[in-house]
Amino acid sequence: MSIVLINPNSTASMTAAMLHGARLAAPDLVFDGWTSHGGPPAIQGAADGALAVPPLLELVREASNMGASGIIIGCFDDTGLDEAREIAACPVIGIGQAGYHMATLLAGRFSVVTTLGVSVPVLRANIDAQGFAPHLGRVRASEVPVLALEADPDAAHTAILRETRAAMAEDDVRCVVLGCAGMVDLPVRLSAETGATVIDGVTAAARLMAALAGLHTAPAAQLLPQV
Amino acid sequence: MSIVLINPNSTASMTAAMLHGARLAAPDLVFDGWTSHGGPPAIQGAADGALAVPPLLELVREASNMGASGIIIGCFDDTGLDEAREIAACPVIGIGQAGYHMATLLAGRFSVVTTLGVSVPVLRANIDAQGFAPHLGRVRASEVPVLALEADPDAAHTAILRETRAAMAEDDVRCVVLGCAGMVDLPVRLSAETGATVIDGVTAAARLMAALAGLHTAPAAQLLPQV
Amino acid sequence: MSIVLINPNSTASMTAAMLHGARLAAPDLVFDGWTSHGGPPAIQGAADGALAVPPLLELVREASNMGASGIIIGCFDDTGLDEAREIAACPVIGIGQAGYHMATLLAGRFSVVTTLGVSVPVLRANIDAQGFAPHLGRVRASEVPVLALEADPDAAHTAILRETRAAMAEDDVRCVVLGCAGMVDLPVRLSAETGATVIDGVTAAARLMAALAGLHTAPAAQLLPQV
Amino acid sequence: MSIVLINPNSTASMTAAMLHGARLAAPDLVFDGWTSHGGPPAIQGAADGALAVPPLLELVREASNMGASGIIIGCFDDTGLDEAREIAACPVIGIGQAGYHMATLLAGRFSVVTTLGVSVPVLRANIDAQGFAPHLGRVRASEVPVLALEADPDAAHTAILRETRAAMAEDDVRCVVLGCAGMVDLPVRLSAETGATVIDGVTAAARLMAALAGLHTAPAAQLLPQV
Amino acid sequence: MSIVLINPNSTASMTAAMLHGARLAAPDLVFDGWTSHGGPPAIQGAADGALAVPPLLELVREASNMGASGIIIGCFDDTGLDEAREIAACPVIGIGQAGYHMATLLAGRFSVVTTLGVSVPVLRANIDAQGFAPHLGRVRASEVPVLALEADPDAAHTAILRETRAAMAEDDVRCVVLGCAGMVDLPVRLSAETGATVIDGVTAAARLMAALAGLHTAPAAQLLPQV
Amino acid sequence: MSIVLINPNSTASMTAAMLHGARLAAPDLVFDGWTSHGGPPAIQGAADGALAVPPLLELVREASNMGASGIIIGCFDDTGLDEAREIAACPVIGIGQAGYHMATLLAGRFSVVTTLGVSVPVLRANIDAQGFAPHLGRVRASEVPVLALEADPDAAHTAILRETRAAMAEDDVRCVVLGCAGMVDLPVRLSAETGATVIDGVTAAARLMAALAGLHTAPAAQLLPQV
Repeated sequence: MSIVLINPNSTASMTAAMLHGARLAAPDLVFDGWTSHGGPPAIQGAADGALAVPPLLELVREASNMGASGIIIGCFDDTGLDEAREIAACPVIGIGQAGYHMATLLAGRFSVVTTLGVSVPVLRANIDAQGFAPHLGRVRASEVPVLALEADPDAAHTAILRETRAAMAEDDVRCVVLGCAGMVDLPVRLSAETGATVIDGVTAAARLMAALAGLHTAPAAQLLPQV
Repeated sequence: MSIVLINPNSTASMTAAMLHGARLAAPDLVFDGWTSHGGPPAIQGAADGALAVPPLLELVREASNMGASGIIIGCFDDTGLDEAREIAACPVIGIGQAGYHMATLLAGRFSVVTTLGVSVPVLRANIDAQGFAPHLGRVRASEVPVLALEADPDAAHTAILRETRAAMAEDDVRCVVLGCAGMVDLPVRLSAETGATVIDGVTAAARLMAALAGLHTAPAAQLLPQV
Repeated sequence: MSIVLINPNSTASMTAAMLHGARLAAPDLVFDGWTSHGGPPAIQGAADGALAVPPLLELVREASNMGASGIIIGCFDDTGLDEAREIAACPVIGIGQAGYHMATLLAGRFSVVTTLGVSVPVLRANIDAQGFAPHLGRVRASEVPVLALEADPDAAHTAILRETRAAMAEDDVRCVVLGCAGMVDLPVRLSAETGATVIDGVTAAARLMAALAGLHTAPAAQLLPQV
Repeated sequence: MSIVLINPNSTASMTAAMLHGARLAAPDLVFDGWTSHGGPPAIQGAADGALAVPPLLELVREASNMGASGIIIGCFDDTGLDEAREIAACPVIGIGQAGYHMATLLAGRFSVVTTLGVSVPVLRANIDAQGFAPHLGRVRASEVPVLALEADPDAAHTAILRETRAAMAEDDVRCVVLGCAGMVDLPVRLSAETGATVIDGVTAAARLMAALAGLHTAPAAQLLPQV
Repeated sequence: MSIVLINPNSTASMTAAMLHGARLAAPDLVFDGWTSHGGPPAIQGAADGALAVPPLLELVREASNMGASGIIIGCFDDTGLDEAREIAACPVIGIGQAGYHMATLLAGRFSVVTTLGVSVPVLRANIDAQGFAPHLGRVRASEVPVLALEADPDAAHTAILRETRAAMAEDDVRCVVLGCAGMVDLPVRLSAETGATVIDGVTAAARLMAALAGLHTAPAAQLLPQV
Repeated sequence: MSIVLINPNSTASMTAAMLHGARLAAPDLVFDGWTSHGGPPAIQGAADGALAVPPLLELVREASNMGASGIIIGCFDDTGLDEAREIAACPVIGIGQAGYHMATLLAGRFSVVTTLGVSVPVLRANIDAQGFAPHLGRVRASEVPVLALEADPDAAHTAILRETRAAMAEDDVRCVVLGCAGMVDLPVRLSAETGATVIDGVTAAARLMAALAGLHTAPAAQLLPQV
């Protein structure tokens, strides 16, 4: 069966872009992309996240029932990740979580560049809760709204490049995790421009799903975390 | 170039067994196995670990200079991991570290079953320092010495099976990480016998190296962590 | 980019089953499955077909705009096929059409076994219009409603097997095309039971898409038929 | 076993060129090329075709007996196709037939550009008998003899290009099927020069054989058409 | 381009069997099988060999002109091998020669089991001329005529098994090369029955062609031996 | 299991270079590289060779016991080859031997260009003993010491190029085998500069190991040559 990438917001073009990125990153896996039509158009901050969870969990349950071999939650806030892990009979990875694991393994220490300042406390809380605080430089906002990533990509790139350079100069890091699902196309160019290792969460999640695929030594039901 | 798997202890047959496990786990990568002839025959506890570090770092430096594309430290104590990351121009992964990342992603929560009690505080300190404490059930000793894993495999299996079952019954976990490089062959059988997800560090490290291989968007030299 | 398989009816579980069948049939292609939520739950006869066309064409236009490299219309009535070919910038194949081409190439002559009698004149008209009349034995109804294929599979199988045997005995054919998207799982068993070559349209369409993939010697825009 | 491509005329260099084209088009299949030494050097018109049939059928019978998994008749006139299908225990495809199927699927409507005017009625009769008349623009002769394709390729190209352009201007088509086995190398260049989709029969037949390979759900003997 | 396997005798079914064996042995190469219709039905002894050479060299010249990337002479007598090497612009391997190289590399020392006694002096002369005399145990005749290998395979097997055992008992060898192109199917069974390493020339030649494929560091014309 | 490439001299950087060359030449095999720390830094002439044999045979025995599927002796003198074949339970190939087999198959006739004059009689004796004398032009010394190949590669190249040209002009050959393990990188450039086919022993041995891999029809123990 396939890995189902669920976009908790209702913007279908973002689902398509994430799906494309996941397929490039892990060509041996089969991905399906589902859009949560009941979610907000873009998740920015804790209030949006709370609204997005119930329809997201419906899709998680449906994907699990249809036999998905893995689920990726396609929002850098790791919206509903803990709840999804409780109800799914397969591994569930958040793209924020995936970016932190990869940055820790590759570089030991990292900063995050996200969209608006309203997302900063959400990401910091996730990093604390997931145990990555010892590896964190800083969570930085580029003040580029999610939907502006598609609408005005040049201005978005300029702002994110500026924050990436600031992270290298001020945060004592050489690795930056891009804190938004809509930034899946940016790492190659940003890395060439700055010399930093730049990681996006979709690519990270797709490659970690491929890595997990070789470890399934227990029946799927036993992959459920304790409740 | 190849991934160099360095065994910090001087037992060459253990290097060969780890190399075999890594190749099975990541058949698209090329692995070389190096044995640290200057290290102790087996590393059990902090004193052994301290003796093993200087000759290990010599080999890390040589592998890095010869152009290794990655280095795996083949001791579950993650002996010398931080120092190795400082001097290598390529990613360095410890097999303990790899096991913790994989268990966190797959199951959220895990216990460790290692060899002797003398290793328990070493592993607990690593888990704290690497930020995995929120995910840990318990670190358990099977009281099987490292070299007994090869010398008396049946008795070793019985003891490790007993501790795996105890972890499931007492630690509120359904995932166990095997805490010794010499346990690379055990997960399939233990998983079938207990219903737990059982992870060994060599397999985990090999698959994570494969996952990292798709992320190298920065020149190797920039993968160096900050010093 | 991917091949988009569009289900013109609103039953999402049927989309999932077709998507699974297409991936098994053409593992080198990437498929996405879209459900037409504005269509009827199942298309049976010409009236249902007419209702299904407008929302289907919306999805065809969207898939074409998003850069699909091919579109499969997942209804054996080839609902909206001609209109879809006019508006899409990529090849469009109907699963009925695909079944007729494959049966002609493999066996020269074939009968069709479909669901209800109300679909028979629709399929006969398609076969005439597409030029396959010289190869046709008979279009036969099993009188199994579309949704009964999932709801009562044993009774469905019995009825379809009976009609397949009747086709071989009465229509002078050794090849049967199954006339409903919901029959994607039946050919292996029916073929073993009857000795006939049994073809389903989803598998046929997926394999023909793979065959076309090697012929794209003209830019995509030139694949548009004349209007 | 292999797909046997049988050239019904006695020009061995043409067999070699078709074999090369088939291997490029379907690299996962194994092809053998057989030349009918008893046939005429080139088949042009119905009289040549009639002479070519008996020695061709001898080779079809031999290929079938030796266990061929498919047979391609390598003459655009589909010489002896019906008779060959009656005696072979495996699928038989003619390269004319293959071109018509592919053009219909890709573009809906097509013209044919062949060699001499003497072949035009033969091809028109085949198109009628095979049911492709609704899709046909016109069958056009370039007045290039078969053997001149190798002997004077520049003049041949000029004449075929002229007819391809005429087809687009006068026949209301954007797809042209090249009506001779010796034209296997022309589609890439002609397509670039004219903007049409240009299909040759050898490539089409090889790719359709690959498509059929996934459908063999019945024992080979049952693939025989009715007699 | 392809490797052309030329059978110097006129028995087409033997060509087909050798072609099948070569394809199994080197699935990454493309092989064509040509039969020398002007040669004797089977080559047994020096007189047959002399008659076979002129028509064989015609085919060698044609294969070389058509751009073959290698030629295998499919007769264990290495009929015409030296002359073929002089006129071909690509590597030419005889199946006898191939068997001797492989046996020398694998086992150091070998005996040959061929068909009739009349072939023994031919093979001994080849072994001397090619420099393999130091590695030879004995050339043994099973007294099974070439065409009896197909006509009465059980009796043939019994006789060849007896000679293989005699070679092991009397010739101080553990490796036997089967000295006839028609013995391509025997090594698996004979090896299991005797414990010897049993090599046939067609498999050996196909695998050596694959090995050579990685060495072509000079333009094809320079592969010509000195004349 | 793996192919173990054993370097009989103690220069580890040469082991790494040979290992790299073997992996490029036979990417489907798994190679391990072992250095004989008890051997001389470089083997030049018979006296060095004698000193290198005892520690080499220790490693051969260890590789065989650990289940190696093949052993390559990485010294062009084929140091200890006969003794190694007697004690190993798997095929053993020397890189000199491999070069002679490949040159004979590709070109019929060859010269050797080695390092110092002191190696010439050793190589000539090997060529005689292995039966390749009829194919030999001349063994030539470039007077480049082994360790100068790495230390002053430009001067080394000039001298080896001069001898390659002399071989072509004076020895009636168009194929040159490079007579030192340290020359693994030279064939591409030398071949382009001279028009000769230039073969190095490491590449030849790796590709012959791959060719042998398809012939193992007897249990490993029976691959042992007679003693």
